[in-house]
Amino acid sequence: MTMTKRDTYTPESLLAVAVEVFNERGYDGTSMEHLSRAAGISKSSIYHHVKGKEELLRRAIDRALDGLFGILREPEASQGRAIERLEHVVRRTAEVLMAELPYVTLLLRVRGNTGTERWAMERRREFDHEVSELLRRAAADGDLRADVEPRLATRLLFGMINSIVEWYRPGRGGAASGEEVAEAVVRMAFAGLRT
Amino acid sequence: MTMTKRDTYTPESLLAVAVEVFNERGYDGTSMEHLSRAAGISKSSIYHHVKGKEELLRRAIDRALDGLFGILREPEASQGRAIERLEHVVRRTAEVLMAELPYVTLLLRVRGNTGTERWAMERRREFDHEVSELLRRAAADGDLRADVEPRLATRLLFGMINSIVEWYRPGRGGAASGEEVAEAVVRMAFAGLRT
Repeated sequence: MTMTKRDTYTPESLLAVAVEVFNERGYDGTSMEHLSRAAGISKSSIYHHVKGKEELLRRAIDRALDGLFGILREPEASQGRAIERLEHVVRRTAEVLMAELPYVTLLLRVRGNTGTERWAMERRREFDHEVSELLRRAAADGDLRADVEPRLATRLLFGMINSIVEWYRPGRGGAASGEEVAEAVVRMAFAGLRT
Repeated sequence: MTMTKRDTYTPESLLAVAVEVFNERGYDGTSMEHLSRAAGISKSSIYHHVKGKEELLRRAIDRALDGLFGILREPEASQGRAIERLEHVVRRTAEVLMAELPYVTLLLRVRGNTGTERWAMERRREFDHEVSELLRRAAADGDLRADVEPRLATRLLFGMINSIVEWYRPGRGGAASGEEVAEAVVRMAFAGLRT
């Protein structure tokens, strides 16, 4: 028998539980039954909060996207030389990824089987496209090397940043802090490892 | 009714079909029935070739690992200054990943539910460790910047290289060739994007 507890969830705390289950089982592999068990409340209690699991997915993806698109509206991302704006966006993208780790992880893993997933993938492409445009402008300014094609550079850049979700766990003793990781990404991407 | 064809598979061609199915459905989510349907031959025909799906996994992972560990035995990887050896290994790792794309993709996705998967993860860690050691030596030689911790640099480096499996498709018109992609990885990782 499953232990159920009194439903004291807020929208945010229920979302946090759901995202954990989505990331563990995959969104497709998660049923309302799984969510009910993980939250320790009945399915009807969950339906009291949300219409279903797709609404939880949409809210979680919204949180990740709000964080990412918020970066593009920061003054350092919209004023000044493209290379400086790009560097700011790269650093902040790594920071937001780590600050909103489970939500961005979910965004990076959705695969497009439902309307909400396809919307998430579309918005993610839009974000990548904005960064790619900044890269293109910085290259046109002569501030980025001309011998790496901007679209390829964008892919490798996001490959490096997004891989952080595979191993970064906040507050793990002895490991690099989020700030150190973001700084390492910026150094490696813009100045390279060689002295 | 499933169409079955005459079994003209070689060990290699059957493996290629199996790896495609593993990458599409996940190894855990693949049954002998799925393999039989994808190959268009009966399950007993498959059992004529292999003991079961774990043997197919082991063979596929072996192929990926042979490619990767083979790099470390190349003369350019074992002679000379650490930074030059490291650069060679990074370039060749990207090249092998693209040349053996489905096999390396499978290696990168296994998650450790069976003995073969745990062995694959262990071997992959060994490879990462070898590269990490090269990085440490190059840093000790003063050839790599001292302000990015070698373990973190290794993770970001593999993050960038491994992300290639997400988008690289050989022979896609207009896209970068495997050689161009490997060159871009080396330029970005060692010299950075900034002019």
